[in-house]
Amino acid sequence: MGRYAFGVDVGGTTVKMGLFDGEGCVLDKWEIPTVKENEGVSILPDVAESILGKMKEKDLHEDDLAGIGIGVPGAVDSEGTLTGGAVNIGWKPFNIPKVLSAYINIPVKAVNDANAAAFGEMWQGGGKGYSNMVAVTLGTGVGGGIIVNGGILTGATGAGGEIGHIHIEDNETEECGCKNKGCLEQYASATGIVRLAGRRLAQDDTPSSLREGKLSAKAVFDAVKEGDAVAIQIAERFGYYLGKGLAIVAGVVNPEVFVIGGGVSKAGEILLGFIEPSLRKYVFPPCREVKLKLAKLGNDAGIYGAAGLFLR
Amino acid sequence: MGRYAFGVDVGGTTVKMGLFDGEGCVLDKWEIPTVKENEGVSILPDVAESILGKMKEKDLHEDDLAGIGIGVPGAVDSEGTLTGGAVNIGWKPFNIPKVLSAYINIPVKAVNDANAAAFGEMWQGGGKGYSNMVAVTLGTGVGGGIIVNGGILTGATGAGGEIGHIHIEDNETEECGCKNKGCLEQYASATGIVRLAGRRLAQDDTPSSLREGKLSAKAVFDAVKEGDAVAIQIAERFGYYLGKGLAIVAGVVNPEVFVIGGGVSKAGEILLGFIEPSLRKYVFPPCREVKLKLAKLGNDAGIYGAAGLFLR
Repeated sequence: MGRYAFGVDVGGTTVKMGLFDGEGCVLDKWEIPTVKENEGVSILPDVAESILGKMKEKDLHEDDLAGIGIGVPGAVDSEGTLTGGAVNIGWKPFNIPKVLSAYINIPVKAVNDANAAAFGEMWQGGGKGYSNMVAVTLGTGVGGGIIVNGGILTGATGAGGEIGHIHIEDNETEECGCKNKGCLEQYASATGIVRLAGRRLAQDDTPSSLREGKLSAKAVFDAVKEGDAVAIQIAERFGYYLGKGLAIVAGVVNPEVFVIGGGVSKAGEILLGFIEPSLRKYVFPPCREVKLKLAKLGNDAGIYGAAGLFLR
Repeated sequence: MGRYAFGVDVGGTTVKMGLFDGEGCVLDKWEIPTVKENEGVSILPDVAESILGKMKEKDLHEDDLAGIGIGVPGAVDSEGTLTGGAVNIGWKPFNIPKVLSAYINIPVKAVNDANAAAFGEMWQGGGKGYSNMVAVTLGTGVGGGIIVNGGILTGATGAGGEIGHIHIEDNETEECGCKNKGCLEQYASATGIVRLAGRRLAQDDTPSSLREGKLSAKAVFDAVKEGDAVAIQIAERFGYYLGKGLAIVAGVVNPEVFVIGGGVSKAGEILLGFIEPSLRKYVFPPCREVKLKLAKLGNDAGIYGAAGLFLR
């Protein structure tokens, strides 16, 4: 088995790619456009072509390579089959390793992109040194990935670790994107934080810098850092929900560490301080020692994790 | 490797033991008393003696045996170490396979008893044919065990699958045994059902057969079967909480099936009908197809699962 691997992260606009060595160092990193036309039929041939070009450039041969890992934006089962398609890139359900292997003679493993990112954070990021971890991605939505004994918890239909849609609030009146009401994502995503902010600001006339300019999760945490009292209340509400959600997740899978990533996590360590109290309050005591850390790999987590499927 | 295995389930009063063949059939089943004196120091020697006696009786030799699996009432890590001791039987933390192997020259694996029972139900019980399963035990408390890709999800401290203590109700005023408030166990255990019943009966004077005799989970479900309106309301409340809890668990680990066991499950299929509506309502849609089944092995689940660690 070769000492190198490619990590591929298929996104809606670009496909991120990286070449890694056995020590987990990224030797090269590049992107190609995601061509979504014709149900995305040329995406995998484009990936294969790009990889073959890079191998030529680096004078690498098939037997130098342990494999190609690929993360895709949809549920993937343990055989690498995209079970429900990937609506963002036009893909219908199919077996990814089988198709990619038709273009390139190197072992292929495919996983969901959030799970790839979780695996990457465990291998070389905020969860390095742990093998039981839950990664939480706070972006437009709330995504997640669960690592158990160093392996991805895929679940029956590839929805393992999709903790954004656990029920967390009985009194919600608005619908989540999934059609349920009261999902964690409705409070802990960037969109959710804006919602919480809107609700808080509508409550009364307390002065706040958030009343000027465009509301965003970033604006809320920037105002928190300025000591804005209303922003702090909003952040506390966010932290109450996310902490409670993580406490529940901890009680189910008993991880060593939570690794918090995604755009919202750019607020930095201050974010964790809002999550901690509610996490420690609601968690089952034998799971209380779970650590809370920030992700480290940013948008590269996916390519790290995909390559790590072969190199870890 | 031999074709037979012993399954051992260490309880507070008796140690249940079974001899199994490679097809998962129990060839013999017996019990010995659990001697708790002196911090339970004689329990493992007693187990070893009993197994050696059984081997002689059946003319089995060490190389006929794949191993001895043992389930114990405490958190056990993936190395078989009882991490926090087992208060019911007086054990302090120690490595179980290491100690038992001193008495008997056969491979030993040790797991938590609820996890052993979960594994048993997957191997030969209500979860047969599935490899991603959550077992839920509704007894005095609510226990559980999670099987991922055919293996036990142990967790960082052996508390994986302890779903009885996930937070499910914000407005609870009474403390759970774990000191938190609003745990699933406070509504879905036998004790929890009695609590729900007491609260409902105190609300008004609606006639109910439950106003006579001793309140118990069994009495509630017996009355449900007689069409008692108040009992049905209590069962609905129980089902609301348990269904909501299972919906959350499904959103985290995305199992193929829930297997419901423990004393409360003796109520039979009628129980599942109360859990279903709330489970289907609150679950993340991609996890909605999860099945809901009754456990089949009763008190033998633990010995099946312990032996199954070697034979499955």
